[in-house]
Amino acid sequence: MHSATPQASPLTPAIIFENVQAFQRTFALRAAIELDIFRAVGEGSSDVASIARHARASERGTRILCDFLVVSGLLEKVDGQYRHSPTSAAFLDPKSPSCIASIVHFLTLPEIRQSYDNLADVVRNGRTALPGQGTVEPENPVWVEFAQSMAPMMAPVAAPLGGIVLQGRSGPLRVLDIACGHGLFGIEIARQNPQAHVTGLDWAPVLRVALDNAQKAGVHDRYDMLPGSAFEVDFGGPYDVVLLTNFLHHFNVETCVTLLKKVHAALKPGGCAATLEFVPNEDRVSPPLPAAFAMTMLATTEWGDAYTFAELSDMHRRAGFGEATSHPVPMSPHTVVMAKAGE
Amino acid sequence: MHSATPQASPLTPAIIFENVQAFQRTFALRAAIELDIFRAVGEGSSDVASIARHARASERGTRILCDFLVVSGLLEKVDGQYRHSPTSAAFLDPKSPSCIASIVHFLTLPEIRQSYDNLADVVRNGRTALPGQGTVEPENPVWVEFAQSMAPMMAPVAAPLGGIVLQGRSGPLRVLDIACGHGLFGIEIARQNPQAHVTGLDWAPVLRVALDNAQKAGVHDRYDMLPGSAFEVDFGGPYDVVLLTNFLHHFNVETCVTLLKKVHAALKPGGCAATLEFVPNEDRVSPPLPAAFAMTMLATTEWGDAYTFAELSDMHRRAGFGEATSHPVPMSPHTVVMAKAGE
Repeated sequence: MHSATPQASPLTPAIIFENVQAFQRTFALRAAIELDIFRAVGEGSSDVASIARHARASERGTRILCDFLVVSGLLEKVDGQYRHSPTSAAFLDPKSPSCIASIVHFLTLPEIRQSYDNLADVVRNGRTALPGQGTVEPENPVWVEFAQSMAPMMAPVAAPLGGIVLQGRSGPLRVLDIACGHGLFGIEIARQNPQAHVTGLDWAPVLRVALDNAQKAGVHDRYDMLPGSAFEVDFGGPYDVVLLTNFLHHFNVETCVTLLKKVHAALKPGGCAATLEFVPNEDRVSPPLPAAFAMTMLATTEWGDAYTFAELSDMHRRAGFGEATSHPVPMSPHTVVMAKAGE
Repeated sequence: MHSATPQASPLTPAIIFENVQAFQRTFALRAAIELDIFRAVGEGSSDVASIARHARASERGTRILCDFLVVSGLLEKVDGQYRHSPTSAAFLDPKSPSCIASIVHFLTLPEIRQSYDNLADVVRNGRTALPGQGTVEPENPVWVEFAQSMAPMMAPVAAPLGGIVLQGRSGPLRVLDIACGHGLFGIEIARQNPQAHVTGLDWAPVLRVALDNAQKAGVHDRYDMLPGSAFEVDFGGPYDVVLLTNFLHHFNVETCVTLLKKVHAALKPGGCAATLEFVPNEDRVSPPLPAAFAMTMLATTEWGDAYTFAELSDMHRRAGFGEATSHPVPMSPHTVVMAKAGE
């Protein structure tokens, strides 16, 4: 509440009210993106009338929405004029190369949101209320939307991941990118190493998105596609590097170990597995974003989780790898976990 | 993001990701209340197994939910053990007399949440997507739920409001409580002044909740019921005090002025109107809770708003009242606006 100071102030229920009403923030941001409000502000519209004109929307609705965005920390308002915050300019204005506005499409898909309608039942049963295996049900079309919508969120992570993976490796390199989605991680390695050859593995409709991105990056002549399930297709190989990005969190420990054994078998001696994950601290409640990610896995999968480094490390050990190492990606909620196959 | 510090740090999209995912916080809190997690913690369950047993829920679901509540600031976790924060002990444990957990029922009613499904359309049209007048459609059953669920949130405001209204007034007092809902505001005045006689006005099914509360408070012999619409029924009177609590925000300025004129006509000379409202500052983006409340009015009404004091003051003036005065309620997002009828 506005009068509260961090310490020694009387208790108020403000944080409870804010949590109950938090859903408004999701839908306000989505509406603002749909109405192209952030482009309007970026192009200089700073009053309600001109933003409303740009959005083809009512002035009442525009004014209330824009004020709500300011309260939510997504715009600024100075002397009655709206303007970008540094963050909204960088990440919400569609003219910015780092705009991630498209993530709202995937993260508010009806299939995803439905998972939360009866969250008490999900907690009772310990698994998603979605049919079958939830979002990892074979050929689930949400992954095409994921590949398209979430790529801008992942793009800034690709270069650091590429740097970590390629450190100490040069020359010809065979890379398998498991559940590659948008393909950006494998593509980045192909860009950083002109002798790298990447095989992207995912459902066929998703691979079309990856191939499209490989073409845009000019590396499609070194990009192969391996359509199907990571648990069923023959990986081929052997590979120097296998990427497992945002994938293990969908499964339980035993399934991860089984998959990591298959990965290990597809690696050359001395080759490595590079896993990108949301890795909370051992307390499982920090840092906020990786810790909170476990909720997404509870709501949308049967057994998924945000695994700690100790858990990931143990999975790798059980699959035959050497000691895993942890490489937090700067300015991102992600961590790269690297583990080597025996030489 | 965890590595970010407030100033001079590189930009991250963390706040955008948090806003997109904010709906999870609403449904996590609702699930925790449904599963009686806060009672379990209050009774001493501090590990996943015992909380899960109390909630008759899976350990996986319970652990992920409880960790998520910690990330959301609604529980604490120390050395792997969950415990109440001072705020959750006071406002979420059902054994606490100030528990407000029931507000989640009203604030996440399907009728309310639906209003946000197509918020871009609401902004375009400048009015609720709900049929008719939205939540203020005559006899809308949501107000029975409101009267039942929201009373604990309003209870702490009743005593300060009573104090402000009764200052300088003693002896026999006739009070009209318009759209009284749970009735707590009028009831509190009857408790503070044993010669006060209160008339509660609301839809008949809502008045049953108010009368029930009047009986519990032992003031039902001084409590009358006036069923119907504030815009249609004869107020009777004349009254010394008319309460307008959480009501004007549902309507546009002209409708408020019309109603205030009717209120003015029902007051004795020197009598006063006491309005309880979410009153944002003139910038309309602070304090956070009153400012954000305008979004609820956009989504659920045709013309409602969170009015500034200048606007409320002007409405009263146009209705024939003297200068209005503003009385922020300590530790609450509410403000009492007082205005006197001419003597």
